[in-house]
Amino acid sequence: MTDRSIDTLKALFSPSSVAVIGASKEKGKLGHIILSNIIKRGFSGKIYPINPKYDEILGLKTYKSLLEIKNKVDLAVIVVPSKAVLGVVKECQKAEIKGTIIISAGFGEAGAHNVEGEISEIAKNSGMKVIGPNCQGVISSRSKLFAWFGPIPKRNGNVLFITQSGALAGMIIGWANHRNLPLFDTVVSVGNKCDIEEAEIIEYFSSDPHIKAIMIYLEGLKDGRRFIEVATRVTRVKPIIVLKGGKSRAGARATMSHTGSLAGSDRIYAAAFKQAGIIRAESIRNMINTARIFAKQFPPKGGKVAIITNLGGPGVITADMCEKYGLNISKFSDETVLKLKEKLPSYCTVSNPLDLTGDPDPTRYKIALKEVYSDKEVDCVIIVAGPLVGGEVVANFIVDFFNKYKKPTAVCWVTENHETKEVKILEESGIPTYEMPEDAVKSMAALVTYAEYLQKESIRKSRGNL
Amino acid sequence: MTDRSIDTLKALFSPSSVAVIGASKEKGKLGHIILSNIIKRGFSGKIYPINPKYDEILGLKTYKSLLEIKNKVDLAVIVVPSKAVLGVVKECQKAEIKGTIIISAGFGEAGAHNVEGEISEIAKNSGMKVIGPNCQGVISSRSKLFAWFGPIPKRNGNVLFITQSGALAGMIIGWANHRNLPLFDTVVSVGNKCDIEEAEIIEYFSSDPHIKAIMIYLEGLKDGRRFIEVATRVTRVKPIIVLKGGKSRAGARATMSHTGSLAGSDRIYAAAFKQAGIIRAESIRNMINTARIFAKQFPPKGGKVAIITNLGGPGVITADMCEKYGLNISKFSDETVLKLKEKLPSYCTVSNPLDLTGDPDPTRYKIALKEVYSDKEVDCVIIVAGPLVGGEVVANFIVDFFNKYKKPTAVCWVTENHETKEVKILEESGIPTYEMPEDAVKSMAALVTYAEYLQKESIRKSRGNL
Repeated sequence: MTDRSIDTLKALFSPSSVAVIGASKEKGKLGHIILSNIIKRGFSGKIYPINPKYDEILGLKTYKSLLEIKNKVDLAVIVVPSKAVLGVVKECQKAEIKGTIIISAGFGEAGAHNVEGEISEIAKNSGMKVIGPNCQGVISSRSKLFAWFGPIPKRNGNVLFITQSGALAGMIIGWANHRNLPLFDTVVSVGNKCDIEEAEIIEYFSSDPHIKAIMIYLEGLKDGRRFIEVATRVTRVKPIIVLKGGKSRAGARATMSHTGSLAGSDRIYAAAFKQAGIIRAESIRNMINTARIFAKQFPPKGGKVAIITNLGGPGVITADMCEKYGLNISKFSDETVLKLKEKLPSYCTVSNPLDLTGDPDPTRYKIALKEVYSDKEVDCVIIVAGPLVGGEVVANFIVDFFNKYKKPTAVCWVTENHETKEVKILEESGIPTYEMPEDAVKSMAALVTYAEYLQKESIRKSRGNL
Repeated sequence: MTDRSIDTLKALFSPSSVAVIGASKEKGKLGHIILSNIIKRGFSGKIYPINPKYDEILGLKTYKSLLEIKNKVDLAVIVVPSKAVLGVVKECQKAEIKGTIIISAGFGEAGAHNVEGEISEIAKNSGMKVIGPNCQGVISSRSKLFAWFGPIPKRNGNVLFITQSGALAGMIIGWANHRNLPLFDTVVSVGNKCDIEEAEIIEYFSSDPHIKAIMIYLEGLKDGRRFIEVATRVTRVKPIIVLKGGKSRAGARATMSHTGSLAGSDRIYAAAFKQAGIIRAESIRNMINTARIFAKQFPPKGGKVAIITNLGGPGVITADMCEKYGLNISKFSDETVLKLKEKLPSYCTVSNPLDLTGDPDPTRYKIALKEVYSDKEVDCVIIVAGPLVGGEVVANFIVDFFNKYKKPTAVCWVTENHETKEVKILEESGIPTYEMPEDAVKSMAALVTYAEYLQKESIRKSRGNL
């Protein structure tokens, strides 16, 4: 990536000034919602509403056109009717805008590929970067820039989400808000991708230490080769989780009218993704859950998992799920088994899954956690717990051993609501909690798969195969 | 099933009197929790606490032993230490108790198979029915009988749940409570099943019109042949959904110590279940979600599904999921396509999935619902909706067309919480709402599979093959 590209993308994702072209005084209009979100969420740079009809919107001086502004503007958000977009883009070029986000729809997805082609040409020739058209905007939470008309995240996290569906981003933000979970640092709704594709964005963010995981909802790629090439480099430093839309015939037909994307052969995608070390999500929920563990934890040293539970049936189901999703259920070392047998009541099941039965006191959990975490035959831990007397104490024990032994940990804490203190303690300490055993297992399985990929890659690298 | 059996099981599930043997004054003890649940939840029959140490517990006269009670008692709940259980069971026999629930643990699951065998013999010889040991009890919500020490459901539903894991029942009750959803009518925690197995329970409830679906968590069967034989009869009148624990090697090992069950070969189970028309759940969530649609709806006439959405990406993903789970995405009739093209804005995608795009007004949904529900090429409908201005109006439209055309309907309503008015309107009208598209798709797929099974069975029947 050239220095100029980096500089331009910086202007897009952390601009010092932004113009909203098509800003509006009417409350329901996108041009109003976006301007309002930029102002209210605390963007600290200069904000220029642009609309020839007004002198002022939301207390800000409003300009007739971009060319009226004397200072240089980094970013332009375009919310004008589709017919006016091309003219506005040309103006942006004239005004030497570095980046634009075209919210307006009515292009490739509606069969109007020509205009998109023209915009794409302008971008290529001028070096101006264009996101969209037909998109929901960009969230850059560290810049407090919400050039965005969907739901607003309550909390900021460490995940970069690139999506061909703004609605999906809105859905996931709602999901996280409901649970008061931090998730996204940056969200880029790429829409029809007439200029910027995923490759450029992941390359730009690959060196950003704040981003711990990259999550992508993808319908189609214009430059598939480049995506795979860039992803292959990026996955060595950051995990990439992709949910691919349009796998089915009906789904592929729908992507055409949704973002004008050719979904392409799923078999080819699958093979290329695997080779590039991309983790493929099987569903929306699986994508979120996987990103959550990647955002907080680290790949384990190996794939041997321990299950600790006080719930018999759910423990059995968790073991079944581990086998289904390719996790290797550890055989505890003889020493661990001996110690557990010595210290736990005789009716506890000392094997893996380790069933502490019924309603154990926190001490029983402490014994189990201590022996299991310290066992060399254990690389990662899945805990299926609750409801417990002393649940908070148990949650704190889990955090202690997780921190001490640095073994990736996922918890399914069975609870009537998402806001118990136990869940809070775990989440705030970097341990994701899940609603169901299968969620914890699948997320852990993804972490193990990624660990294996990194190991293979580092072996390849050390052998000079790269 | 003999009249005597029916009469005895009636005494178990809707008794007119209950004794709690091992009732306790100490708050944390199971003997206290169970007695307290029976009293507080409004059981209207006679309640007899039994404990030689007390004269009164929770305001009720307490007896030294069962034999002290002069009236006949229908049901005895046994919560004494494992060593005392056999003696108590013999007393129950002497007192001509019809049914007993043995909560106490420490039998087959702890290797003590002999005592279980003796209890089983007593039951067989006397005709007294025994549930357990090592179980969480029974919930009979219509009798307001909560002989149960786990979480209590906030609302009553139409599902019978038979489970070898009390913890799992507790987990699911918590899940439903959190969402304020009705789910269970009856819950039977069968534990080690020394006497009563699933077969007897499903046979008893098969003629109960209030029960709309049967949900089973199963670790092992003692009499597999009988279960399949009874299930084959019952599935013709009521759907049975089974989650099988102990599929994996580690899982099977865990079932041994959990309920003393031999999990058996999964391949044999799979084949037998399929032949019996049993719907197999792949996970806890899938079991709940499937039971929810069965509890409220009816098998469709065919398998052609329509997807209606205002969320592009989630619509694409729903179509992908339909193909993955074997649902046939309908090709709308020419008439429907024509009418939709005529009535909807040009930027809506008139195909299946039907994408109403962005933020449609309720009228647009009404047009879509009317044409799609009335299309003969559509047997069932999946709607992926929200967030919407006028969401309540849309929810009411969905209910109207669902009622008019009687086509099974599942909704994924994208919302920040489970208690929006839209969700309430749908749920109260018999339309289950799901968190994610895959949940709706899998549930609908189960409904279609069941419909196909019923059709095949009725053809077999009419040909005299049965």
